[in-house]
Amino acid sequence: MVMNEKARVLVNLDSLPPNRDQFIMKKECNYTILLCGSMGLGKTTLCNTLFSSPVKKQHTYKGINKLGVEKVMTIESHKMDIEENGLTVHLSIIDTPGFGDFINNTGCWDTVAEYLHDQHEQYLVQDQKSLQANRDDNRVHVCLYFIKPVSCGLMPLDVIAMQELGPHVNLIPIIAKADTLTVNELSRLKSKIMNIIEAQKIMIFRPSAEASTPEIAKSLNDAMPFAVIGSTKKILTEEGHQVIGRKYPWGVSTVNDESYSDFLKLKDLLIKHHMLELIQRTEYQVYENYRKAQLLSRKTGLPRLKKAESKLLTEKQTAIHKRISKLAAESEREYKEREQEMVKRRDQLNKNLEQYHNEIRSLEKEVEALKIVLAEKTTKA
Amino acid sequence: MVMNEKARVLVNLDSLPPNRDQFIMKKECNYTILLCGSMGLGKTTLCNTLFSSPVKKQHTYKGINKLGVEKVMTIESHKMDIEENGLTVHLSIIDTPGFGDFINNTGCWDTVAEYLHDQHEQYLVQDQKSLQANRDDNRVHVCLYFIKPVSCGLMPLDVIAMQELGPHVNLIPIIAKADTLTVNELSRLKSKIMNIIEAQKIMIFRPSAEASTPEIAKSLNDAMPFAVIGSTKKILTEEGHQVIGRKYPWGVSTVNDESYSDFLKLKDLLIKHHMLELIQRTEYQVYENYRKAQLLSRKTGLPRLKKAESKLLTEKQTAIHKRISKLAAESEREYKEREQEMVKRRDQLNKNLEQYHNEIRSLEKEVEALKIVLAEKTTKA
Repeated sequence: MVMNEKARVLVNLDSLPPNRDQFIMKKECNYTILLCGSMGLGKTTLCNTLFSSPVKKQHTYKGINKLGVEKVMTIESHKMDIEENGLTVHLSIIDTPGFGDFINNTGCWDTVAEYLHDQHEQYLVQDQKSLQANRDDNRVHVCLYFIKPVSCGLMPLDVIAMQELGPHVNLIPIIAKADTLTVNELSRLKSKIMNIIEAQKIMIFRPSAEASTPEIAKSLNDAMPFAVIGSTKKILTEEGHQVIGRKYPWGVSTVNDESYSDFLKLKDLLIKHHMLELIQRTEYQVYENYRKAQLLSRKTGLPRLKKAESKLLTEKQTAIHKRISKLAAESEREYKEREQEMVKRRDQLNKNLEQYHNEIRSLEKEVEALKIVLAEKTTKA
Repeated sequence: MVMNEKARVLVNLDSLPPNRDQFIMKKECNYTILLCGSMGLGKTTLCNTLFSSPVKKQHTYKGINKLGVEKVMTIESHKMDIEENGLTVHLSIIDTPGFGDFINNTGCWDTVAEYLHDQHEQYLVQDQKSLQANRDDNRVHVCLYFIKPVSCGLMPLDVIAMQELGPHVNLIPIIAKADTLTVNELSRLKSKIMNIIEAQKIMIFRPSAEASTPEIAKSLNDAMPFAVIGSTKKILTEEGHQVIGRKYPWGVSTVNDESYSDFLKLKDLLIKHHMLELIQRTEYQVYENYRKAQLLSRKTGLPRLKKAESKLLTEKQTAIHKRISKLAAESEREYKEREQEMVKRRDQLNKNLEQYHNEIRSLEKEVEALKIVLAEKTTKA
C-alpha cells in the first residue's frame, strides 16, 4: 500500500449493487467527496477511516494555532486512485479548511457553493465543445456536512449553509465525534436535527430503494443524520480483540460498533450500495439542472453570470447607497435652491439691463428729437 | 435540600483557607460566577455539578432549535444562598446564552465586558454616595471561559474575547467536555492553549501561594486550563461503586477522577482555597482599577462614559463616512465651480449695467446740453 498522492490502494468496493455492470462497462469513474464543517470535527480523520488509508494529511492550522489570528477560508483538493476487480475509482477529497472557524462567518457557504458551480461550469464548457474523450470531470458527487455533537441541534450557520448547498449537491448530514454523546443524548440529537431539517426545508440526499434494496434504503434513511466516530488507530481491547477506535481511560469506543456508530452505514452508502446512485444523481439531476438554468440565461460559449454577492454584503451596500443617495439628494436640493436664487438674481439684473436699455433708447430718441428741433431752429434762425 | 431560586443548600465549603476568619467576621459574602462560552459546552451542567444542586436550569434554546433562526445574545442571572457553619454565601451565576453562537459573532465579547463594567459602576455610584450598609454588590468575581474540546486550541473568537475580558475579571480558562479527548489529545491541547495564552498576552487568574499553600497553588497553576467533565447523574459502575459521571456504551467517565478530570482542582480553587483570593482580588485590584480610571475621566456623580462601539462597527462607519465625505467634497467642488461661473456672469452683467448706466448718463448730459443750446437758440430767436 503506497501512501502518495496518486497511489493505488485497496478498499472494500466488494459487492457493488445490481447495476454494477454499468461501472464495469466503463472500467473507471470519477468520485468526488466534499467535506464541510468547522475545525476540529474530525473531517480528515473520518475520511482516512472511510478509505482505510491516509487520503489526506492532517492540517496544521498554523495560522490559528500559533498566533490565534484569522486566516482565509480555502478549498483544498486531494486525489487518489482506488483499483479493485478491474474497476478504477478516481477519488477526490475536497476539504474546506476555515469553514465556520472565524468570528464572522457570513457568506462562507457562498465559497463552497461557488466551488460546486465552478466544477459544473468547467464540465459544461467541455460539453458545449463536444469533447467526448478525456473530459476533465471534477463535479462533486457528495457533500458530507459535519454537525457539532452538541445537544442543541443545528446552529444558525448550519441551517443556512445546508439550505444553500442542498440543491447543488447530494448533501449528507453527519454528527461528528459521536462518541462524545451518551446513547440518550445521541437519539435526542438525531431527532432534533431531523426536525430542523424538515422545518427549514433543507434538501438532503435520501438513498432510494431502487438503488439497493428497500430494507437497506430504509435502514440508511432511518439512521440519518449518521453519527460517526473517526479513528485510524488500531487498539487491542481488554478482551484481546483488535479494533479501530479511540482509547479513553474508561474504555474504548469502536468505529464499527453499530450500537452507537453509524460509520458502517455511512460507508455502505458512500462506497458500497449507493455510490452509483450518487454519481448518477449528480449527472442526471444536479448537473442537468445547472445546465438548463445556465443555457436559459446565456448564449452558447459565453461565460456564466457570476452569482450575486452574499445577502449581508448586499444589504450593507444597499444601506450605504441609500445613505449616499440621501446625502446626494440633499446636496442636490440645496444646490438647486441656490441656483434658483442665482437665476432670479440674473433675471433681475437682465430686467434692470433691459430697463436701462429702454431708458437709453428713449434718451437717444429724445436726443434725436432735440437735435431735429435744434436743426429746425438753426435753419429758421 | 430545596431547589428553588433562593434556596439554602449545603455545599462543601469545608475547610476554608487560613484567612477564613475574615469570612467568619462578616458572616456572609457575595460570590458571583460568570459563565462564558458557546452553546453545548456544558456550562449549566458544570455549574450544577460544582454546587451539587441545580443552581440553574437547562436552556431550551427554542429560538435556535425549533426554527434554526438567530436570537439575540443575552445575560442571565441566577441567585441562590449557600449556608454552612455560620457562613452564608450569596451565590450568583451569570450566564451568557448566545455567546459565539451566531454566524457573525463580532463584538459579542463587548456585551460581556459591558456587563462587567455595569456592575462595577453600580457599586461605584453607591461608593460615592457612601451607602455603607446594604450595598447592592453584583460585581463578578470570576469568569469561567469554556473552550471547545477540539485539538486545534483556541479559535480567533476565544483569543479576542479572552484578551478583552482578562483585565476586567478573574478569568479562568476551562476545557469543556474533557471526556471527549483521549489522554494524549488532552495533554497536547493543554500545552497548545497555554502557548497561545502566553503568545497573545491573555491575562488569566493565577492562584497565589499566599492564599493557600505553595504546593496547592503550584498544582492548580500546572493544571490550567482545567479540563472538566460536567454531570449530575449518579451512575453505578460495574464494580458496584456509585459515581457521578457520564455513561457511554464503552464505559463510565467519572467527574472526580483526577487522572483525566480537573474538576476537583477547579472546585478547590473556586470554593475551597481561593474563593477569598478571588473576592479580594476583585475588590482591591479589578474594582480599584475601574474606580481610578473612572474618577480620572469624569466628575463625581456624573454617569460613566460608555465604551466606544466595537472595532469592526467603527471601521464600517469610518468607511461610510469617508465615502460620504468624498461624495460631499465632489458635490461641493462642482457647486463651487458653478457658483464661480454664476458670479462671473453676474459680474459681467453688472459691468454691462454699469456701461449702460454710463451711456445713459452721457446721453442725459447730451440731452441737457442740447436742451441748453435749444433754449439759447429759442431766446435768441
